[in-house]
Amino acid sequence: MSTPVRTSIATVSLSGTLEEKLVAIAAAGFDGFEVFEPDFVASPWSPKELRTRAADLGLTLDLYQPFRDFDSRSEDQFARNLVRAQRKFELMEELGCETLLVCSSPLPTASHDDGQLVEQFSALAELASEHGKKVAYEALAWGGHVNTYRHAWKIVEEVDHPSLGTCLDSFHILSRGDDPAGIRDIPGEKIFFLQLADAPFMAMDILQWSRHHRNFPGQGSFDLSTFAGHVHAAGYTGPWSLEIFNDVFRRADTQRTAVDAHRSLLHLEEQVSAAVSVGDGPELFTAPERTPLEGIVSLRVAAGPAKQDQLHTMLSSVGFHLVGRHRDHDLQLWRHGLLTIAVDATAGTVWSAPGLPADLPVLTQIGIRATEPEVWGRRALALEVPVEQVRLPGSADENAEVPDVVRLKVTDATSIDLRGPGSAAAWESAFDIYPLSAARNRAEASVLTGIDHVALAVPAESWDSVMLLLRSVFEMHPHEGLDVTDSVGLMRSQALTLVQDGSGNTLRISLNMVDGSRSGLPTVRRGGVSHVAFSCENIFAAAATMADWGYAPLPLSPNYYEDLEARFGLNAELLDRMRGAGILYDADAHGEFFHLFTPTVGADLFFEVVQRVGGYEGYGEVNSAVRLSAQLRAE
Amino acid sequence: MSTPVRTSIATVSLSGTLEEKLVAIAAAGFDGFEVFEPDFVASPWSPKELRTRAADLGLTLDLYQPFRDFDSRSEDQFARNLVRAQRKFELMEELGCETLLVCSSPLPTASHDDGQLVEQFSALAELASEHGKKVAYEALAWGGHVNTYRHAWKIVEEVDHPSLGTCLDSFHILSRGDDPAGIRDIPGEKIFFLQLADAPFMAMDILQWSRHHRNFPGQGSFDLSTFAGHVHAAGYTGPWSLEIFNDVFRRADTQRTAVDAHRSLLHLEEQVSAAVSVGDGPELFTAPERTPLEGIVSLRVAAGPAKQDQLHTMLSSVGFHLVGRHRDHDLQLWRHGLLTIAVDATAGTVWSAPGLPADLPVLTQIGIRATEPEVWGRRALALEVPVEQVRLPGSADENAEVPDVVRLKVTDATSIDLRGPGSAAAWESAFDIYPLSAARNRAEASVLTGIDHVALAVPAESWDSVMLLLRSVFEMHPHEGLDVTDSVGLMRSQALTLVQDGSGNTLRISLNMVDGSRSGLPTVRRGGVSHVAFSCENIFAAAATMADWGYAPLPLSPNYYEDLEARFGLNAELLDRMRGAGILYDADAHGEFFHLFTPTVGADLFFEVVQRVGGYEGYGEVNSAVRLSAQLRAE
Repeated sequence: MSTPVRTSIATVSLSGTLEEKLVAIAAAGFDGFEVFEPDFVASPWSPKELRTRAADLGLTLDLYQPFRDFDSRSEDQFARNLVRAQRKFELMEELGCETLLVCSSPLPTASHDDGQLVEQFSALAELASEHGKKVAYEALAWGGHVNTYRHAWKIVEEVDHPSLGTCLDSFHILSRGDDPAGIRDIPGEKIFFLQLADAPFMAMDILQWSRHHRNFPGQGSFDLSTFAGHVHAAGYTGPWSLEIFNDVFRRADTQRTAVDAHRSLLHLEEQVSAAVSVGDGPELFTAPERTPLEGIVSLRVAAGPAKQDQLHTMLSSVGFHLVGRHRDHDLQLWRHGLLTIAVDATAGTVWSAPGLPADLPVLTQIGIRATEPEVWGRRALALEVPVEQVRLPGSADENAEVPDVVRLKVTDATSIDLRGPGSAAAWESAFDIYPLSAARNRAEASVLTGIDHVALAVPAESWDSVMLLLRSVFEMHPHEGLDVTDSVGLMRSQALTLVQDGSGNTLRISLNMVDGSRSGLPTVRRGGVSHVAFSCENIFAAAATMADWGYAPLPLSPNYYEDLEARFGLNAELLDRMRGAGILYDADAHGEFFHLFTPTVGADLFFEVVQRVGGYEGYGEVNSAVRLSAQLRAE
Repeated sequence: MSTPVRTSIATVSLSGTLEEKLVAIAAAGFDGFEVFEPDFVASPWSPKELRTRAADLGLTLDLYQPFRDFDSRSEDQFARNLVRAQRKFELMEELGCETLLVCSSPLPTASHDDGQLVEQFSALAELASEHGKKVAYEALAWGGHVNTYRHAWKIVEEVDHPSLGTCLDSFHILSRGDDPAGIRDIPGEKIFFLQLADAPFMAMDILQWSRHHRNFPGQGSFDLSTFAGHVHAAGYTGPWSLEIFNDVFRRADTQRTAVDAHRSLLHLEEQVSAAVSVGDGPELFTAPERTPLEGIVSLRVAAGPAKQDQLHTMLSSVGFHLVGRHRDHDLQLWRHGLLTIAVDATAGTVWSAPGLPADLPVLTQIGIRATEPEVWGRRALALEVPVEQVRLPGSADENAEVPDVVRLKVTDATSIDLRGPGSAAAWESAFDIYPLSAARNRAEASVLTGIDHVALAVPAESWDSVMLLLRSVFEMHPHEGLDVTDSVGLMRSQALTLVQDGSGNTLRISLNMVDGSRSGLPTVRRGGVSHVAFSCENIFAAAATMADWGYAPLPLSPNYYEDLEARFGLNAELLDRMRGAGILYDADAHGEFFHLFTPTVGADLFFEVVQRVGGYEGYGEVNSAVRLSAQLRAE
């Protein structure tokens, strides 16, 4: 039976002092780490102290890095560099670290002659060998002469020395668009080290991209599972290590980042194990598989007393009505057809942070119906995501070990609740349900058929963490991110979808980046970020019915409809109907999109009703500025 | 006599609603504006209302923009685009706007045939003419076929229609590295519009660079004075207009951004007028010329009671001593040789913002000796920078109209005080000066010869504004910016210098970007951002003398000196002396740099002593992480 894949991380990936980083790395479950030289140089620990401290924490020193600008066309400079390397081998001996990372040189003085490179790396390998050390040679994507993994491997192959191997870094390979399939041609034992980094696709200089915008596997856009699959198949048996340069991680909470980092490797291993036959190599992590979800069926919104009336007005205007009250808490039950919204007025701290408007409404729970929440709970825990397993007081079988609800925190404010088959009835049993009323009858004329998507405000410093959670536990698929500009600024927006095989059911969550705040709450962005979009079959009929319930169209600019006419050539009658009902429009190659909005409740939250025609794939983001402008006027 | 250059700005350059933008544009002194279509489409104002409102504010509608994707290889699509253009000409008639901006198409469906382009633009020009309108054709840097100003001009020239001219945009031309000298070959009357934007040099995709990182002339790295000089020399007589896409400006205070915008044009005009003979064109702005400065000679530091002792300890340790107290305020006078530091313990709000540590020290004034502060005052006012003209109570001639001090606010926390020849004595007359004391005698052994540089913490949202102030009023020269990384994150740092002709005196100010805070105060970055670096002739002698005054070397990592040895091959004796005195080291192609630091006073402020050997040009930023790490341990 093979041993599990060993996990490692470069200290540069985290914020804090070297001392703080080591504690976080060990606590997150890593087996070892790469010593990033500037961290060591700034540390008060002597080499021996670092060695001892790491051993106490159960961590191995897997790599000392980086050794830069080794090769040189000047033999004098090369001789000096060899002395510098010797100093580092001596230091590594004290540290108890076996392997030195040497990267290809981007300097104009670098050797551009493969023959000279082979000579210089032969000398280095020999020197390493004398010190009982090994050198892992890596091609930087911006290396002046050597900048592909094939070229670095060619040098290593020609030197043919047991102390010289290659280091493969996913960023340097995938950022150039190189085909990683050739990795399978490298003997596994000559791959001395593996560094893994993801990154969002960005059209920018590779060096800037690399130094500021890398992130963990499953947070960016690279196909890392194919990449790591090749390395695994080549017979590589060393650690899978993360080397991430990221401006946000550099200042974020050390421990939280380390936990995400470890999760990203588990997720990657799971993806690789699904794709390749495992063979003789180290054993890849797997988690319990996903089971079906039935879509978003309930929500919980918390708001302070000052915003309760406004929230009720908005809910009424889109067709929700109050059907009951919780017997013990200040919690109302609102319903429209099969959709439930719990309105939480319990005194709490969620919506009262200093500097924020009073009584801010917050979307605190997204309820998703699941056939087997307990499997999701096991899956999340295996992926090191903490879950709360909730047994409701009214649950059918009090002794069952199966939770009614499995709760995962997505942001500090919002959780996803996976609700089992009996949970709705169990939960409702704690409420006094009103007798059938006119309001309730009205709901029979339900116009909202479901929840098209939920948009969450996510602080910049949690962004990558939330992406990883949704992509690892739920295996949601990220769409292309976009920047939405309007009168209050620019907002990054990212949609993720989960298409349910068979059911045709699509679960959509959209993330909107807001500046972080120390309170842990999303900062309020004047004019609305969080929203819930309900789907309908016919938006004109819906708007007409909703008008009876108090829906008043937003004061959209007449210029908007003039422009729609010029852009899409829509006919006058359709434009008139849209104008009359406050409906906005978009189209893509697959279909059309109609949508309408309520004003905001307390600067952030609002509701939307959408109708998709054909296979329209977007979210109408192009109308954001017009929508916000009207919402600000409606305040 | 010619009229002044007309100034204009695109509404996209500012945050807020169209209504708010217009008010700010008028208040900042612009003559007109470009209507950015999405702003108009979201506005509740009808075309007629916008026209009336602009007229009331004294603003002309100089351009309607942008009209995208006009030309097409498909004649059907072209016909639809012509109809779309007609709609916009009709709208412009209502708006009272004469010129439409049409940009080259980046679409794959764009025409790639110059003959077809000439035909299509002939049709557009004819249509414009029928509506009494004009079209300004602009080459986008990322246009699929037309992407240089020469190519756009070639099409315009071949169409040869009075209603078609070209629009020149500095960003699209300079971002590609195109030579703008060819602009002189375009007849001035065929240049229908001029758009000006600066940008920092960034190695990234031009589209991303253009959409997020443009800034005002004098805030970035482009040579705009040469560019604008060519346009002026070509005989262009239309407005100089700013079209700036900037993520920070999109959310910044509308009025403040508009004021900076207008200043940037005045500064650019002044630069152009110094370079080219004005000729018959519109008259270029000039401000009173700079007069000599003698360097930074005094500072004022405010700190609350809890930090006063610590501040005094730090000041003593670098050789300052208390020589007097203000008779009316809680203000101490500290001195070292010719250098003065006023320590302000006046109760105030500067250092007491919610969420910040109590009694935070802040550098509130940088005093620079000037021979003629009144000329600087006039210069600043001409450039629309507010100044405070201070007459000191003890001033020699109470009736003189000449101020003793001219004060310019640099950030919300810090001002630059230009101090006239008699101001030191006048100011000191309000202090009780202690009789000659041992402490005072000690100062005779002065080791600090001046102030090498001052580093200011600047919030991200003020960054461009501060850059423009220092570059316009003082004509300081910006050096290449860099990112400093350490255990608490990443910080953008930017040095500016003012080399005094003749005197050899160099005034250096370095800006460190910190996240903004709503309090207007720089956010505290644990571990020090603001600092004052004193110069000395011999840092080893200085450290030895300072040891008697209480200076204790920072607990720098021994690993740092091991690494210095490996990197620079410094000899063991020198390394020992540096280690003993807590001295750090750097070298560049021009010389060497030695420096030492105090611990921080209250998380932000610290003092530094530096010795430059030869022509070293940097600031030792490479040692920042090591310095901070030691300061955190010394806290």
